Amino acid sequence: MYRTNTCGELRLSDVNKKVTLAGWVQRTRKMGGMTFVDLRDRYGITQLVFNEEVNAELCAEANKLGREFVIQVTGTVNERFNKNKNLPTGDIEIIVDELKVLNAALTPPFTIEDNTDGGDDLRMKYRYLDLRRTAVRKNLELRHKMTMEVRKYLDSKGFLEVETPMLIGSTPEGARDFVVPSRMNPGQFYALPQSPQTLKQLLMVSGFDRYFQIVKCFRDEDLRADRQPEFTQIDCEMSFVQQEDIIELFEGMAKHLFKEIRGVELTEPFQRMSWADAMKYYGSDKPDLRFDMKFVELMDIMKGHGFGVFDSAEYIGGICAKGAATYTRKQLDALTEFVKRPQIGAKGMVYARVEADGNVKSSVDKFYTQEVLQQMKAAFGAEPGDLILILSGDDTMKTRKQLCELRLEVANQLGLRDKNKFALLWVVDFPMFEWSEEEGRLMAMHHPFTHPKDEDIALLDTDPAAVRADAYDMVCNGVEVGGGSIRIHDPKLQAKMFEILGFTPEKAEEQFGFLMNAFKYGAPPHGGLAYGLDRWVSIFAGLDSIRDCIAFPKNNSGRDVMLDDVMLDAPAPLEQKQLDELNLIVDIKE
Amino acid sequence: MYRTNTCGELRLSDVNKKVTLAGWVQRTRKMGGMTFVDLRDRYGITQLVFNEEVNAELCAEANKLGREFVIQVTGTVNERFNKNKNLPTGDIEIIVDELKVLNAALTPPFTIEDNTDGGDDLRMKYRYLDLRRTAVRKNLELRHKMTMEVRKYLDSKGFLEVETPMLIGSTPEGARDFVVPSRMNPGQFYALPQSPQTLKQLLMVSGFDRYFQIVKCFRDEDLRADRQPEFTQIDCEMSFVQQEDIIELFEGMAKHLFKEIRGVELTEPFQRMSWADAMKYYGSDKPDLRFDMKFVELMDIMKGHGFGVFDSAEYIGGICAKGAATYTRKQLDALTEFVKRPQIGAKGMVYARVEADGNVKSSVDKFYTQEVLQQMKAAFGAEPGDLILILSGDDTMKTRKQLCELRLEVANQLGLRDKNKFALLWVVDFPMFEWSEEEGRLMAMHHPFTHPKDEDIALLDTDPAAVRADAYDMVCNGVEVGGGSIRIHDPKLQAKMFEILGFTPEKAEEQFGFLMNAFKYGAPPHGGLAYGLDRWVSIFAGLDSIRDCIAFPKNNSGRDVMLDDVMLDAPAPLEQKQLDELNLIVDIKE
Repeated sequence: MYRTNTCGELRLSDVNKKVTLAGWVQRTRKMGGMTFVDLRDRYGITQLVFNEEVNAELCAEANKLGREFVIQVTGTVNERFNKNKNLPTGDIEIIVDELKVLNAALTPPFTIEDNTDGGDDLRMKYRYLDLRRTAVRKNLELRHKMTMEVRKYLDSKGFLEVETPMLIGSTPEGARDFVVPSRMNPGQFYALPQSPQTLKQLLMVSGFDRYFQIVKCFRDEDLRADRQPEFTQIDCEMSFVQQEDIIELFEGMAKHLFKEIRGVELTEPFQRMSWADAMKYYGSDKPDLRFDMKFVELMDIMKGHGFGVFDSAEYIGGICAKGAATYTRKQLDALTEFVKRPQIGAKGMVYARVEADGNVKSSVDKFYTQEVLQQMKAAFGAEPGDLILILSGDDTMKTRKQLCELRLEVANQLGLRDKNKFALLWVVDFPMFEWSEEEGRLMAMHHPFTHPKDEDIALLDTDPAAVRADAYDMVCNGVEVGGGSIRIHDPKLQAKMFEILGFTPEKAEEQFGFLMNAFKYGAPPHGGLAYGLDRWVSIFAGLDSIRDCIAFPKNNSGRDVMLDDVMLDAPAPLEQKQLDELNLIVDIKE
Repeated sequence: MYRTNTCGELRLSDVNKKVTLAGWVQRTRKMGGMTFVDLRDRYGITQLVFNEEVNAELCAEANKLGREFVIQVTGTVNERFNKNKNLPTGDIEIIVDELKVLNAALTPPFTIEDNTDGGDDLRMKYRYLDLRRTAVRKNLELRHKMTMEVRKYLDSKGFLEVETPMLIGSTPEGARDFVVPSRMNPGQFYALPQSPQTLKQLLMVSGFDRYFQIVKCFRDEDLRADRQPEFTQIDCEMSFVQQEDIIELFEGMAKHLFKEIRGVELTEPFQRMSWADAMKYYGSDKPDLRFDMKFVELMDIMKGHGFGVFDSAEYIGGICAKGAATYTRKQLDALTEFVKRPQIGAKGMVYARVEADGNVKSSVDKFYTQEVLQQMKAAFGAEPGDLILILSGDDTMKTRKQLCELRLEVANQLGLRDKNKFALLWVVDFPMFEWSEEEGRLMAMHHPFTHPKDEDIALLDTDPAAVRADAYDMVCNGVEVGGGSIRIHDPKLQAKMFEILGFTPEKAEEQFGFLMNAFKYGAPPHGGLAYGLDRWVSIFAGLDSIRDCIAFPKNNSGRDVMLDDVMLDAPAPLEQKQLDELNLIVDIKE
């Protein structure tokens, strides 16, 4: 061992001990005849002292140390004269009498500090140096702690972690697979799993009863800001359970994690909200409930007064921003521009301020009497000083989604999305199907094995689009952190489901025959859930991007962010020999 | 929840309780007017009772139950008249008053019993049914428990589990990579990691200090009996350590696991054996030390007596099988045939029995006097009743390996390889290099980053083939369960290593530039180790094949063993659309 202690553990009680430390030079300061070196490792920072008068040669060596040099020192723990209250080791220093440079270092391209001078790209390029920063390392420490706690909790509930294969068959349904050519089976390919869904259902058929796995999954999608081609799921499945059992168990897990990781005791049961209500009141299946600003529908009040935009709208709805009547015209114009951006697509925005005397002053005053505006005010429960913002449109769902974006933007501006506040809920009763314009048919909203709600089964024949599913999402702060469903275990119900989804028996057999065959040998009722670990860690760590809780993330074109090298520069061309062995020809179309 | 209790938990103290159970029908027995059903789940078996006199209709339903039907029953816990001492629930039974068939089942193609009537192929084809067998499920339960304990131990020692990417760059050195075409980067490929070696070294450069990961690794090799294309490693790396620190920490982990998993207290430090001694005395770098039978070299004693085979041999060595003088001529001939098999390749075998009077009777008596044979006997410390077996050859290492095979075979025959006995050791001081006939140069025995022993560094210039490395393997019962090395952190030493390995600076830069560049920014001294989880679980579970501790293994041509389906039948051809998106043409050469 190159050290007797880490750089984070020495205290006043260690004074006069002879110790050996090793680590990185954080900084050096020369003051008169003294040289001070901050020595850093994962555990902390300890101050080293070199005195020119005592040992000029050693002090001269210390003066030659550069930032990020790796050194080993031996010396005596000493009480500091000027204590540093900001460091756990701030009461002591080491009077060094031996110094060994274990490795020199080039000057890093940015400072290894919590507030670094390095920009995003530079830090990603030198990710191995970025990871030295305490702020970044803490995120990965938290990730480690979370997975430890998840395993501890699930183990205590009788779950078994079972590894499922990474090299599996490709499924034509769903997102695009990453594939792996097989050398031993020419012309054939494995796929990397998008999730172990079918494998975990097989484990239920196998009687494993309670399964989990913290597992890498893969999806070859065009990358959006906060997606990675490989991501990690906490994947779970249980037998002989109903929706309520799963919700109870995983709500327990969430509470356990908040307590252990963040010291937050969530004592109340999580709110349950139907998908229909989530859409109606928040325009989203993952509403951010850290703040209120519930949608109010205004069709009854605002239609028929001669304002053409509203009169012809199918939907008129608004939000009330408490105390935001102080918004200037400029701010309101900016909000209007915000909702008119093509990504959001609203035509315009109507606003109304509630003035100190209770009167409502709106941007559409010429169409509405104060009486109507007061009705509107009452509908919002608005008070003097509040700001009402209204959108309308001829497609209810689309307009609700626009209003959702507006609600989140206003909340951002008003500072209502506090990262240290956590609002959790279950969104339940998702629709079983959604209409696909592209395919011209109903598609399974979750997947074709999702169980419809018992009370809606009769609707499968008469009004399938109205059928709700035993499907549920856990939402935290407007982010879907996990979701799942009860699966169908009755072959007749499954056959009906395939029929509604437009599968011929042959096509169902071709695509899902494997699972269907397994089910013939005695499938228990079962259901499960999967959490997105990356997203969940980000929320716990208060991060804006999942990238910050991944040690070596990829950039938006799926490349390793460390771009300037050959070893990790993935992807890269293959050697001809490798292509030949795989029976592949690369044929890039212009 | 479909049950109030599992099938494994009810006891005498639960008598008269009203309970609901759910599970699979293990078997039904009709005795007079009574029907008994054994209901099985992961947790155990509980006997259900149906009485025709009490409820004829219900009993008739029970009589219709087939094997592996999934049912739910409600009834009352009753003390059994004929208790079953072999079952934890054997004191009670359930007097059923409600029965619901949750799912019917086809008759399984083999019995779901520990001693099943299903052959290997059938069981692998229906792996999801095979996994219902307690004997198989127990292996996966043990695997879960082992990974939990590994994580608990490493966490307690300050290790952080960090996930490294699965989609990385391909490295031309080493075994063959599985590759993944990138759609977003036409003509370019990712590789799946053979191990996170370089990534974990980067984490050391990042100051993570103690890293581990239980991680899937991939190797596209022609599969041998006990290899899988995807396998799981317990991968570890530490900074500021020497070989001794790593050995101590991971020996502690092994002891922890033996205690927690098998209840075996290993109190003594593990034996350490140099690679040279392991080869000299056991002909293997992973000697099975559950039994002795150390090699004895006989060149001094047996050469020069006119037996041409020995006189011209470079190496003559033998083993002494205690008490095996009773071996018949037929058994000895079979052993001779064994060593002459092409996989082993010996020319022949000489044997000698120590008779009751102490005389030695050998197969080469005509060349040797009893005096010489007595010298030989003394060299083995052989006693009356012992059997001496001798091989010779003109290549010392090859002959030792043949003798190793003979030693293991004889031990098998003598029942010396007890699966409930554990002999652990560290093999240390591996050679740094080995000569490659194919490449015509020295190759790194571990990898080019392995640190040579300090005392051998001078030999790098004069006799590189004699240099030993700070490399170590942990061996249990003749199986290498883990191995690792101290890595080079001094750029000058690394440059010298590349030079000896015949790399030009350009080639070294091309292949390893990434890591080398990272090292320029301050690399700590570091080292690590990786355990093969599959192998280690097999040893703990007493299995002959790693396949039995993997939920869904692949067969020897890398195919899923469940062959008759489309969903898991991997690998399989891609659709043309997928190939087009990947810019690939399949071109199978005849």
